[in-house]
Amino acid sequence: MISWLSPSELETALRDIGGRRYHSLHPFHGMLHGGKLNRDQVRAWALNRYYYQAMIPVKDAMILTRMNDASLRRIWRQRIVDHDGTSEGDGGLERWLQLTDSLGFPRDYVISNAGLLPATRFAVEAYVNFVRDRPLLEAIASSLTELFSPNIISERVAGMLKSYDFVSRETLAYFDGRLSQASRDADFALEYVKHNATTPQLQQSVLDALTFKCDVLWSLLDAIHHAYVSPGLPPPGAWIPGAELRS
Amino acid sequence: MISWLSPSELETALRDIGGRRYHSLHPFHGMLHGGKLNRDQVRAWALNRYYYQAMIPVKDAMILTRMNDASLRRIWRQRIVDHDGTSEGDGGLERWLQLTDSLGFPRDYVISNAGLLPATRFAVEAYVNFVRDRPLLEAIASSLTELFSPNIISERVAGMLKSYDFVSRETLAYFDGRLSQASRDADFALEYVKHNATTPQLQQSVLDALTFKCDVLWSLLDAIHHAYVSPGLPPPGAWIPGAELRS
Repeated sequence: MISWLSPSELETALRDIGGRRYHSLHPFHGMLHGGKLNRDQVRAWALNRYYYQAMIPVKDAMILTRMNDASLRRIWRQRIVDHDGTSEGDGGLERWLQLTDSLGFPRDYVISNAGLLPATRFAVEAYVNFVRDRPLLEAIASSLTELFSPNIISERVAGMLKSYDFVSRETLAYFDGRLSQASRDADFALEYVKHNATTPQLQQSVLDALTFKCDVLWSLLDAIHHAYVSPGLPPPGAWIPGAELRS
Repeated sequence: MISWLSPSELETALRDIGGRRYHSLHPFHGMLHGGKLNRDQVRAWALNRYYYQAMIPVKDAMILTRMNDASLRRIWRQRIVDHDGTSEGDGGLERWLQLTDSLGFPRDYVISNAGLLPATRFAVEAYVNFVRDRPLLEAIASSLTELFSPNIISERVAGMLKSYDFVSRETLAYFDGRLSQASRDADFALEYVKHNATTPQLQQSVLDALTFKCDVLWSLLDAIHHAYVSPGLPPPGAWIPGAELRS
């Protein structure tokens, strides 16, 4: 068990977890933005990552169910608006589907999750279950990977635009909105956590929650890397190039 | 949706899933029993697989909570007895710990799950959640991977004994009991499923449950293979050789 940390020491400890465990350190991230992947490997990433995106508003709705304070819910619900948009054809999820469109996937196939890696499903469901089952403080703390996402988004967009002729500023539009949204969301969650993690036990639980979430994101890249890059062994039933046209 | 199958056609369809998706087809299995792994890779397997073993009686207890028929529960509870034993030092879980003992792991370390791959945790938890959340028929059907386990156990024990000087008949004692237990358990579950899956919808749900369970087992080997064999990239915080002595 850690000893009590001041709020700013807690922030330092949280940022240190990101510095050691955030998926920007995963070899797949380097390959993705460094132009080392072929188009089908980028497609596998976009397809599997869709399921994570699709469950984010479900995860945030789950967090809303844990909040019995209208002022908190008013702030948190903005995350759902960001992902789901205000009308058909709007929102972050739609923009992710524009990316999978541009990579040649039929929408029905993407939305069906038919070709998803089972490990993607298990990791994302672990995240949704975590925010359902753990105390609200931990559920909020698990969102703090967004503290580290502006950097990874900038690297990813710049690198992908430079490296791949099959992506464009337009097809990567998802990330434009996320830069400002993630900073705003992370600032709020960080202040909440610093204010409410008032004992060493609660502070440890907050650090553990962020570690857990880093594990989720890392596992997603592990699964994609294993199935489609090295050694490149998709499990039975998972998407292989062309499967999206036969289903 | 499938059309209605006779009970024996349903059995054939279930066995066909095993023939295509059971983890005996995973490259890691071939390497394990073919003597292609080094001791640390076998250790990684035993360590991660412990968590699966440890959650099996929890999974079976969850299934008991879904059964409102004493005669069914009397049969199913034997699975918990087999894993937990009738006294300290007895049972399948204890025998698995004798395997991890013989591979040089402190018991406390194994039981703590401190070095577990996150993907192992997520897959095993997905299995426990499945039997909690799905209809009893599907929960029982998900156990049907045991139909295929006598073959894999025979291959594994014979191959490991032949290939590795660091395992012995005694340290593999876990598998001795499982040969007869798995056949008995699978026979019962198969008859239950054949008798109760009386519509095409229920039959499809049973086939899907077995597919799901094959995905769980395959994911476990994927995660171990990725972290410790190829490319060999353990995620941050996961066991690396020696970590069990420093914790």
